[in-house]
Amino acid sequence: MEAVIRTWTLAELGQRLGAEVSGSADLRIIRPVPAGDDDPGGITFAESDKYLAMVESSTVGAVIVPPGWALSKPALFHPHPREAFAMVLALFRRPLALSEGPSPQAAIDPSAEVDPSASIGPMAYIGPRARIGAKSRIHPHAYIGEGCQIGADCEIYPHVVLLQDVVVGDRVVVHAGAVVGADGFGFVWDGQRRVKVPQVGRVILEDDVEVGANTCIDRATCGDTVIRRGSKLDNLIQIAHNCEVGEHTVIAALTGVSGSVRIGDRVTMGGQVAVADHVSIASDAILAGRTGVMGSIETQGEYFGTPATPAREALRLLALQRKLPELLARIKALEEELARRDD
Amino acid sequence: MEAVIRTWTLAELGQRLGAEVSGSADLRIIRPVPAGDDDPGGITFAESDKYLAMVESSTVGAVIVPPGWALSKPALFHPHPREAFAMVLALFRRPLALSEGPSPQAAIDPSAEVDPSASIGPMAYIGPRARIGAKSRIHPHAYIGEGCQIGADCEIYPHVVLLQDVVVGDRVVVHAGAVVGADGFGFVWDGQRRVKVPQVGRVILEDDVEVGANTCIDRATCGDTVIRRGSKLDNLIQIAHNCEVGEHTVIAALTGVSGSVRIGDRVTMGGQVAVADHVSIASDAILAGRTGVMGSIETQGEYFGTPATPAREALRLLALQRKLPELLARIKALEEELARRDD
Amino acid sequence: MEAVIRTWTLAELGQRLGAEVSGSADLRIIRPVPAGDDDPGGITFAESDKYLAMVESSTVGAVIVPPGWALSKPALFHPHPREAFAMVLALFRRPLALSEGPSPQAAIDPSAEVDPSASIGPMAYIGPRARIGAKSRIHPHAYIGEGCQIGADCEIYPHVVLLQDVVVGDRVVVHAGAVVGADGFGFVWDGQRRVKVPQVGRVILEDDVEVGANTCIDRATCGDTVIRRGSKLDNLIQIAHNCEVGEHTVIAALTGVSGSVRIGDRVTMGGQVAVADHVSIASDAILAGRTGVMGSIETQGEYFGTPATPAREALRLLALQRKLPELLARIKALEEELARRDD
Repeated sequence: MEAVIRTWTLAELGQRLGAEVSGSADLRIIRPVPAGDDDPGGITFAESDKYLAMVESSTVGAVIVPPGWALSKPALFHPHPREAFAMVLALFRRPLALSEGPSPQAAIDPSAEVDPSASIGPMAYIGPRARIGAKSRIHPHAYIGEGCQIGADCEIYPHVVLLQDVVVGDRVVVHAGAVVGADGFGFVWDGQRRVKVPQVGRVILEDDVEVGANTCIDRATCGDTVIRRGSKLDNLIQIAHNCEVGEHTVIAALTGVSGSVRIGDRVTMGGQVAVADHVSIASDAILAGRTGVMGSIETQGEYFGTPATPAREALRLLALQRKLPELLARIKALEEELARRDD
Repeated sequence: MEAVIRTWTLAELGQRLGAEVSGSADLRIIRPVPAGDDDPGGITFAESDKYLAMVESSTVGAVIVPPGWALSKPALFHPHPREAFAMVLALFRRPLALSEGPSPQAAIDPSAEVDPSASIGPMAYIGPRARIGAKSRIHPHAYIGEGCQIGADCEIYPHVVLLQDVVVGDRVVVHAGAVVGADGFGFVWDGQRRVKVPQVGRVILEDDVEVGANTCIDRATCGDTVIRRGSKLDNLIQIAHNCEVGEHTVIAALTGVSGSVRIGDRVTMGGQVAVADHVSIASDAILAGRTGVMGSIETQGEYFGTPATPAREALRLLALQRKLPELLARIKALEEELARRDD
Repeated sequence: MEAVIRTWTLAELGQRLGAEVSGSADLRIIRPVPAGDDDPGGITFAESDKYLAMVESSTVGAVIVPPGWALSKPALFHPHPREAFAMVLALFRRPLALSEGPSPQAAIDPSAEVDPSASIGPMAYIGPRARIGAKSRIHPHAYIGEGCQIGADCEIYPHVVLLQDVVVGDRVVVHAGAVVGADGFGFVWDGQRRVKVPQVGRVILEDDVEVGANTCIDRATCGDTVIRRGSKLDNLIQIAHNCEVGEHTVIAALTGVSGSVRIGDRVTMGGQVAVADHVSIASDAILAGRTGVMGSIETQGEYFGTPATPAREALRLLALQRKLPELLARIKALEEELARRDD
């Protein structure tokens, strides 16, 4: 069995980070912790007086700070404490256990092509003509449907479902419970009932895409639903059929994107955003949480509200809405003043 | 192994659709594509000059247009191009691979009754006294709990969960990850803690219902939560305990319906709609995306906003909200004018 | 095979509930039903004239009412009919079938510690060093990842995913499809791409917590995401990394809570609520459905709207927004009156 959990001395961490060590070099660090946590085996970081005060008043074991800072605790001096702390996080990360090769408890279709260096967990299903690339890890209970293609170095977490003909690039991460390639929601009313429009298109997840837990990305009616390289989707998001999400875009949880929407590159979308069908959103746009996009957004900038409005204006409108009682009172005063002068 | 992917010549498609062929009859069509896609193996359709122009300037192989239209590409002439294209989509649809009969890797309780013509995928679970009807397909990893009844010709996709006593009609489609029959959310505060109200009712999905990926439909506290025949639910929808959704209703993604709501027939609900508990929504009502239904909707028509407001009025209110800065300025001008006249 | 479904005579129910029986004591009660349902084998309850009228005009078999009420149907007299009815619901509840002990079709890592009285369903996965406490029930297809610890008497429903190092107390219920411990959504833009911040913290679900179907609770970046004892979460909720939800709090479906939010004890949150990151919500606060919490809520009370506003004020603002056409008309009238006087 692999070692349980790796720990590090402060000196070892300093060496890894290229950081000068102050205080007990052989202090054993068990885990990274948020600033303020009371954990003598923990390490955290501080980049401001406020956070340093939180750290100093806690029992945390050690802290990463900029060079030259004065403090009472064991410390690592690093010019960029936040980045150094991310390196610490990476050192303490343990990839989810999964044996290399195909589990005998998996169900793998004989026509599937699985790279010998890939991992297929127990109870995973690999359908006909599916292809799994080098070093990709298919965790237990994942369903990789007929004709799906997965590149190299992907992490397909437990209970992910890729339905049919889904194309996945390299270094893609799909979190637990995400459903990629289910039918788009297309029905026409024939006067008697809703008749289903067959959905036969694909979903493409390009390189370095990350898809959150229980998020749904529907297959295109025909053609492709595409998430371009480097984009990151949070949990419980709905991406409808025939959407295209550009490169390096981030979308927060519970956002719903209707059919045939075009989202640009490096867009940032907060949580619970809604986007009407067939609109486009300009590259580099920033949409605050719960923005309601009813028409296309043509220029970059910050947006908020429903319909989506440049943020400065939206905040002013929000403030004015809260002043409605005052506006009403001023109108009443004007009416009374006019009536008075009438006399 | 079944043939990989079926293709058609233009002549074969014309025959199937009852459409006149124009141009190279032996052109091989590999897939239907959206108008504007560059795909010499693709076929698309056009019903307007705008779409015809998109098609003509693309490299698409063929196009379906109304009879008599002049164009340079190979074409099929059909009086209803959109409907003809839906027929093409249906021809290219490949039902998800699944062997007939029970997989030896499934877990089927001896007391379950599975029709011999049904398919039970590997890693599917069929609980005690569950019944699976003729030609229904239970995909891998589906969980069909104790006492659930599934009719004929149903498609229960991977990772669907039907908990207990769920009743499913014929030709029902439940997409991946949907959870049907989990406990309703019922707790009472006893002064110390939240005490659970036991949830013992059922969920009924009538004939021709379709339930989207990762959608949740809770069992009734007692009695039934019902989705009536022909209704279609999109992904990531919450239907709470004891709701009744009428016939041929459609509900878009991320909508939340609280407990004991009655929704009529042929209702259309956009995405992210919210419905308060115990209200009713009239048949044929149309609710735009993100409508907030705080009280019952008694008459059909289009609604929008929170609380739900007839759409025309709601749009006017939205426009007026955006005019608040102008209203404020006009009030100021009136105040100043009055003050000036005071002098 | 266990008995199919237990039924009770009215006399047996009366004895269990400590309620006086009126009418045919040997009437066989097959199921509890909502008031108004036509079900001669059903029992319901009434606490008001309105509900009694509904019951009397239905064909329900029996009804629980306060002592001394006059009615034509077989009845049980109980001082608290609603509570007595909850006892009836509990009598009719059948725990989901699951054999004690580990299923031979489960995949259990040799280093996992499973209490002999626990149940592990077919196709369940128990990872390295996971621990399952006494009498806990792990249903089919559940994934209990590496290092997860589950206490006693828990119910982990089908298709639940606990990723890594998740800590679960006693009597915890996690409904189907919930994902606990997926990566928090943390990325930094390096000028070229979104770089992932490793997520290495835990999720802690304390005693008596209940987590709804397809709900997602992300692991902390470092430290812990915590749901304190007795709190109940509905379906399709997003709880982001490093959040803390206090004791005995309830949160309704489709609510999204951003990172590092602190929610107090006994808070009530409606459906589709959104909470911005790093804010806190006071204990005993009540947030109506779809409230948008943009800043901390410091005092208890009822809130509504976006940004969250004391409910009385929020309802007044909502009413004034609907009066905007009238306000505009009054401003116009003032302007015309001033212009007229100008003449």
